[in-house]
Amino acid sequence: MTVKQRLAVVDLGSNSFRLVVYTVAGDGWWQRTDEIYQPVRIGEGLAASGRLGEQPIRRALATLDVFSHFCKASGLLPGQVEAVATSAIRDAENSEQVLSAARELIGLPVRVLSREQEAYYGYLAAVNSTTLQRGAVLDLGGGSLQLVHVLDRLQQEVCSWPLGAVRMTERFLTEPDPGGPAQPQQLQALREHIAATLTQARWLQGMDGRIVGMGGTARNLAAAAQRLAGLPSSGVQGFVLSASALSELIERLAALPAKERAKLQGIKPARADLILAGAIVIEGVLAAGGFDGLEVTEAGLREGVFFERHLGTGDPPHPPMYEDVRRAGVLNLARRYGMDAPHSRHVAELALGMFDELAVQGLHAGDPVERELLWAACMLHDIGMSVDYDDHHKHSRYLILNGGLPGFSPTELAIVAQAARYHRKGMPEPGFLSPLLGKDDLAMLDRCAALLRLAEDLERSRDQLVRQANLAAKNGSVRLMLVADGETAVPRWAAGREGELFQRAFGRRLDIAA
Amino acid sequence: MTVKQRLAVVDLGSNSFRLVVYTVAGDGWWQRTDEIYQPVRIGEGLAASGRLGEQPIRRALATLDVFSHFCKASGLLPGQVEAVATSAIRDAENSEQVLSAARELIGLPVRVLSREQEAYYGYLAAVNSTTLQRGAVLDLGGGSLQLVHVLDRLQQEVCSWPLGAVRMTERFLTEPDPGGPAQPQQLQALREHIAATLTQARWLQGMDGRIVGMGGTARNLAAAAQRLAGLPSSGVQGFVLSASALSELIERLAALPAKERAKLQGIKPARADLILAGAIVIEGVLAAGGFDGLEVTEAGLREGVFFERHLGTGDPPHPPMYEDVRRAGVLNLARRYGMDAPHSRHVAELALGMFDELAVQGLHAGDPVERELLWAACMLHDIGMSVDYDDHHKHSRYLILNGGLPGFSPTELAIVAQAARYHRKGMPEPGFLSPLLGKDDLAMLDRCAALLRLAEDLERSRDQLVRQANLAAKNGSVRLMLVADGETAVPRWAAGREGELFQRAFGRRLDIAA
Repeated sequence: MTVKQRLAVVDLGSNSFRLVVYTVAGDGWWQRTDEIYQPVRIGEGLAASGRLGEQPIRRALATLDVFSHFCKASGLLPGQVEAVATSAIRDAENSEQVLSAARELIGLPVRVLSREQEAYYGYLAAVNSTTLQRGAVLDLGGGSLQLVHVLDRLQQEVCSWPLGAVRMTERFLTEPDPGGPAQPQQLQALREHIAATLTQARWLQGMDGRIVGMGGTARNLAAAAQRLAGLPSSGVQGFVLSASALSELIERLAALPAKERAKLQGIKPARADLILAGAIVIEGVLAAGGFDGLEVTEAGLREGVFFERHLGTGDPPHPPMYEDVRRAGVLNLARRYGMDAPHSRHVAELALGMFDELAVQGLHAGDPVERELLWAACMLHDIGMSVDYDDHHKHSRYLILNGGLPGFSPTELAIVAQAARYHRKGMPEPGFLSPLLGKDDLAMLDRCAALLRLAEDLERSRDQLVRQANLAAKNGSVRLMLVADGETAVPRWAAGREGELFQRAFGRRLDIAA
Repeated sequence: MTVKQRLAVVDLGSNSFRLVVYTVAGDGWWQRTDEIYQPVRIGEGLAASGRLGEQPIRRALATLDVFSHFCKASGLLPGQVEAVATSAIRDAENSEQVLSAARELIGLPVRVLSREQEAYYGYLAAVNSTTLQRGAVLDLGGGSLQLVHVLDRLQQEVCSWPLGAVRMTERFLTEPDPGGPAQPQQLQALREHIAATLTQARWLQGMDGRIVGMGGTARNLAAAAQRLAGLPSSGVQGFVLSASALSELIERLAALPAKERAKLQGIKPARADLILAGAIVIEGVLAAGGFDGLEVTEAGLREGVFFERHLGTGDPPHPPMYEDVRRAGVLNLARRYGMDAPHSRHVAELALGMFDELAVQGLHAGDPVERELLWAACMLHDIGMSVDYDDHHKHSRYLILNGGLPGFSPTELAIVAQAARYHRKGMPEPGFLSPLLGKDDLAMLDRCAALLRLAEDLERSRDQLVRQANLAAKNGSVRLMLVADGETAVPRWAAGREGELFQRAFGRRLDIAA
């Protein structure tokens, strides 16, 4: 049994309060293990009065009371709980009323984040959950919008404006009829306000690079766009919400009365009245920066706070970062299911060795991204055994698709998942992932599945008997020669079944040397 | 880390050879962890000559060689490997050729099971994977058919005839055109032969009770019937293949040329030419015993051998048996995912307590089966957290449906799975399990989900703070009163959200006492 440690992050946002518990095992893997969510809307009315309202304060204190009891009851010590507050509490004149109650009555000292700190934690979440190198991070909450300029994965300029979804809704979309469809002049006024505000960020204007987005608005819009496009989905991590899909969503949302906007699948009821203003803010940022779309991450401020605790505070100017997000995510997932590490690693080693040999001999292009997907499929091919041995290849696919792997696009994830799905038998097919897989993707899937399967055959006895597998192309076929620490009857028998797939993947016959 | 032990069972059947590895953890849970399958057809030609053919022997020895290497390479010691052979090898004049080669060349001593032993292991697999009390166990292999009469879960008379699918195909369905559709006179001759043979089992004639079936023929037919009926499926465990569905399958199969019978989804290509004869044997048994259908189990001879090793040899006349198969299966699944046992057990205790109180007060019928399904849903509701915290209710459903839980019908499993699916939020819906859930099932699902959710709310802090939950019905509402070792703000807050579901499930308003 590995020792497990817990950390709770309490996030007092302008729209919702959340308590999230992270559990870290001794061998480095971590996962979220509990969460309480309450749509408190502490920021309600703030835009007009500059103060937290009586009702919102009452809801906030009741929720904090619940959180505090939860922490005590589940044995989380004060040092294991980190509570932070953002825009609404930061900006209101009378927030001390909430903060002192949290501190004194409930024993939950709250750190009010400055705009820069709030932006920093969002940035930290983004660079540790995507492969963003150069571009921007957008964090849109109920109270504020944060934009961070990123170069070489490092934070540059930081902007924060009170352009949050609750504030923009209250200021622009509630008159004259707060419940009806939006009026064109309302939308125009909102758009103009956003465009004018964003000119303050000179670095943003027509920049190149990508933009990563977080927050409930971004997640809900991405989920709605996935559904409209008929895409299979196990979450929105890594999904790119294109500027054109966003325009279409805005049109649909604007035509509906505010309360009915959750009829659009993917939009949560608690967010129905806020989603339109939030969508228009994002649209404005994409337009200002000339971005084609917003790459969504499910991580957010809370994960930023967690990463700082989990990875250490870093060494300025280098914040705490996974060196390789995709690699770290794959290893985290493999460890979480206690997978036979020497076996998986050896399958990966054999498969990558064959991949490289075939590339050198011109049988495929040797694309480094393909090589990485093959590695991921090898490391994860057996995780489904934790469900059941029967059909474990299908269970592996399920766990890969649902594991929230960071840094991969939905198409890349589909290739990894489907290669694992076909690691035992059958000719790879796109199946329900078909909308994500084009012709080139399917060819890549064939190659990944063929090499994973060959490597798995060579590791059939799970004891690293076969040290090396050499492939030599000649006379229209490819010859497989094994270097092993013993008798190779089992691996040769097993590999002997892969001729058909190998032929389809590489266009050559596979011969197995005695 | 719990200590794990392994056992390999090698099963030399008349149609296929199989090596299955079982892993048992120190805390008692077990699962299959590896399997090699080869369709050797050692019984090919045996019906005509009484001898194993040259080709089949060659295929058998090559496969045994592979198995032997696999065992050595994966570190399975001789004491951890149990090899058994059945009908074909038992009956052939020249099987010593295979047995001595296995023993001497390959170091794999094979125990040739007598008819009685073969039937016994099938029986053992059936009573440990179903709730069969009274009736019969059918085990149809390539060479022989075993029928065991069961009373009070104990084995009574045993019958074994050479009516296996390979033999019946060769004897009745290969002339004049082995590849074409079956001729009516062929089918009639086969049916008459079976009916005549079965008269030898007097106990079978028009008996009451259930019949449980195992073997590849039964599994394939069940899978085909599920698909024809448009039922959602995660395996055939517990599925009842009705006599009428079997008739329809036989009609469809007989109309197809032998090689095309795998076009029927659910029938495996390696079994295409054998499935028709096998189906007619099963049809004959159902007719002779007056059974409405065959309840299929995925366990078989191999599991029987495993259970004997895992559970001990028993105490005659009581063979090694789980006292309660359903309970053992649920606990096995819960342990496999390392679920927080005190929490799950406490949720179950609270939920069953409320179930009993509401029954006493006449708010539902207090059906003991419903009580058991509620218990199972409580024990398993969180297993999906091993996949990911996000959507863990959905992952729990997936793991429950795919976990191969023994002893439950597909409808019962759907209720357990769907109650777990709705243990956090939302109003229960049948979803893709709709074809399995009638009106009464949905009402049961509502009650199970409502009580599981209330109990989970009361255990929100996972520390057994709430010792007892009392429910008192009066004046059209039900009042919830908590007995707790401390402050109950969190549980009362959480339970406060369940009013709508409680109302739908029990037709009463839920009040929560301060």
